[in-house]
Amino acid sequence: MIDLLKVDSLDEAVEKLYNECISGNFSVAVEEVSLSDSYNRILAEDIISNIDVPEFDRSVVDGYAVVAKDTEGANDTIPTILNVVGESLMGKTQDIEIKNGECVYVPTGAMIPKGATACIMIENTENITSNRIAVYESVAEGKYIIKAGDDIKKGELALKKGHIIKASDMGFLSSIAVNIIKVYKKLNITIISTGDELIDENDKLSFGKIRDVNTNLLIGLSNKYNLNVVNKYLLKDDEKLLEDTMKRAMFNSDIVIVSGGSSKGKKDTSSTVINNISSSHVLTHGIAIKPGKPTITAYDKNTKTILVGLPGHPVASAVLFKLVVICVIYKLMNVNEYEYTCDGIMTENIPASPGRMTIQLVTIDNDYNVTPIYGRSGLIHTLSIADGFIKLETNQEGINKGSKVKVYYL
Amino acid sequence: MIDLLKVDSLDEAVEKLYNECISGNFSVAVEEVSLSDSYNRILAEDIISNIDVPEFDRSVVDGYAVVAKDTEGANDTIPTILNVVGESLMGKTQDIEIKNGECVYVPTGAMIPKGATACIMIENTENITSNRIAVYESVAEGKYIIKAGDDIKKGELALKKGHIIKASDMGFLSSIAVNIIKVYKKLNITIISTGDELIDENDKLSFGKIRDVNTNLLIGLSNKYNLNVVNKYLLKDDEKLLEDTMKRAMFNSDIVIVSGGSSKGKKDTSSTVINNISSSHVLTHGIAIKPGKPTITAYDKNTKTILVGLPGHPVASAVLFKLVVICVIYKLMNVNEYEYTCDGIMTENIPASPGRMTIQLVTIDNDYNVTPIYGRSGLIHTLSIADGFIKLETNQEGINKGSKVKVYYL
Repeated sequence: MIDLLKVDSLDEAVEKLYNECISGNFSVAVEEVSLSDSYNRILAEDIISNIDVPEFDRSVVDGYAVVAKDTEGANDTIPTILNVVGESLMGKTQDIEIKNGECVYVPTGAMIPKGATACIMIENTENITSNRIAVYESVAEGKYIIKAGDDIKKGELALKKGHIIKASDMGFLSSIAVNIIKVYKKLNITIISTGDELIDENDKLSFGKIRDVNTNLLIGLSNKYNLNVVNKYLLKDDEKLLEDTMKRAMFNSDIVIVSGGSSKGKKDTSSTVINNISSSHVLTHGIAIKPGKPTITAYDKNTKTILVGLPGHPVASAVLFKLVVICVIYKLMNVNEYEYTCDGIMTENIPASPGRMTIQLVTIDNDYNVTPIYGRSGLIHTLSIADGFIKLETNQEGINKGSKVKVYYL
Repeated sequence: MIDLLKVDSLDEAVEKLYNECISGNFSVAVEEVSLSDSYNRILAEDIISNIDVPEFDRSVVDGYAVVAKDTEGANDTIPTILNVVGESLMGKTQDIEIKNGECVYVPTGAMIPKGATACIMIENTENITSNRIAVYESVAEGKYIIKAGDDIKKGELALKKGHIIKASDMGFLSSIAVNIIKVYKKLNITIISTGDELIDENDKLSFGKIRDVNTNLLIGLSNKYNLNVVNKYLLKDDEKLLEDTMKRAMFNSDIVIVSGGSSKGKKDTSSTVINNISSSHVLTHGIAIKPGKPTITAYDKNTKTILVGLPGHPVASAVLFKLVVICVIYKLMNVNEYEYTCDGIMTENIPASPGRMTIQLVTIDNDYNVTPIYGRSGLIHTLSIADGFIKLETNQEGINKGSKVKVYYL
């Protein structure tokens, strides 16, 4: 028997589901991919640099490697004269060691010879003879040199487990000679929408029918958050049909989502089915959040499947998908950085709903003015226009105009 | 003969390449995809709604549809009594017309019957008999009703050509019964890195050699910006080899990028080759930007290929890839929204470089404090750490601490 009156806070709901996944041995498989195929994948290992980058002291200018002290006092009118004793070639080792009064030509990126402590830009020199230059610049030690290990040192942590690979990370990992990395396999998800009133993309609209919105909305979010959509179903309201479909889905999915409309009795159907087919039975039946209350979670340890019932209301289903489903699986994969937020200033007062968390869609402009969008229930267009949402915590009073708020992105 | 001294401003470089693409009939092919496969694709058509959403007046609460006037003066102690003359079912048409003193039960989302001008929440009513209710709330006309077309009206522009499809757009387009959309085919790109000093992921590092960074960096950015990488090459510095490789690439690529190191004579090799193999010859040879000056652009109208030589410096190559290549092709596809920026406040003075645009990598924190990262030339790690970059325009003086700046993302 499920207690229909006891709702969880969002944090409680996330914690219950997460703990059940842990104790029920939910695990995310790991695969190796080559670095060039790793864009946007989630790192499943800490990456430690095996080398210093750069590996050797390098020049950052086209010019001459010198002993810094030799240039003391040199300026536009009183140059220092140095002997050119060699040339450092790109990609070649350099065995020359320079002494006081000597210098070596170095192009950008080339190795600094032993004995040299700084570089001089070629613009600030002049050839006197083929092997003597005048230096019109005084440089301090280290000037225009990148020291070995300046970028990253051998043994240093390059990227952390759970990091989502960006383009610049792909360049960075190349530089430390990493070319195969372990990433989490994309989790498989099945998305089910239920409702006698819903019709799918192949049906003709008829008066009184509503096109199913949640399936494509949740497919899009699944793509965004690196999930692999294995199947989608649009079902009539039928307990047996829902149970059969979910049971089948549990064999090839890590996550099964059912989002229901608001027709009478529907919420009970989802929760009854989810309760029947999960080893944990229903963990959370209702979350103290507005919109999004009719959210149900469970876990089945036999098939290792997360089961979540989301509200039919598109805005609520999208927000709860992120705040519950993505939050839990990203926690399981050590991902912290996906929660992009942006601070801004409220342009209006926002009322709170006592005893529950309130989610308010907002826009945010270039000057960080945050304005609520009062889309009425079920208006999916408002979600398309919104930049993100703000959260009013359970016991928070309303937000006053002019207050600082954190905007979350979907 | 290429004039090596004449550099273009960034805007001039973009305009020249864009105009050459237009006059040389560069076009981006269009394909149809089903909405469920459209995440992150670029829309190649304006989408106009063919229907009103919602199609009919709907209730946003579980309750009763009423004539608003009937509830005038009703409150907690003095209810209005109404006759329940029917029930509106989800997904069904509703033929009843209500008159004064009458109401109809409506669940959330169900059709509002004719004659009704507002809804009452069920919480604010009480059953007196099986077909009479007491109403303890006074409502204004329109209360708790979404009118037909409130979300979007038939004939209204839903999404514009060039829009990048988000998850919420997939839901939104579902709601207006769109299920196949025209998107731009992903452009094919070949990425070439050149440099005797560079070694690829399969080579053992040896002293003096540097691992190629730009290939994976540019592959990552290509993934991010919806390009299809057809080939990648790491070439030694050899004019003939580069020319042959580029010529072959032009047959299956829309864009061919060559990024070169800084070894002597290299820039001339790239520009000579690009000049030889393009119908436009070199359009821009050098851009007044720091870092990123050695950037070369051309277009070949015979193979309809954009040819760009990027600097070897990873930060410069990434920034110029975005500011030139992505800028031009997104302009060709009418994409405006990719240029995410964020305003912030400088925490330090930033010097400008007279006569050229300066690009400075920065971090930005939650309080919008923007701090420069003075990575030295070629330190790819700094790009991985940076949140974005700021631009100092050609004739702009330095930026003072405390000034407002716009941060661009890579």
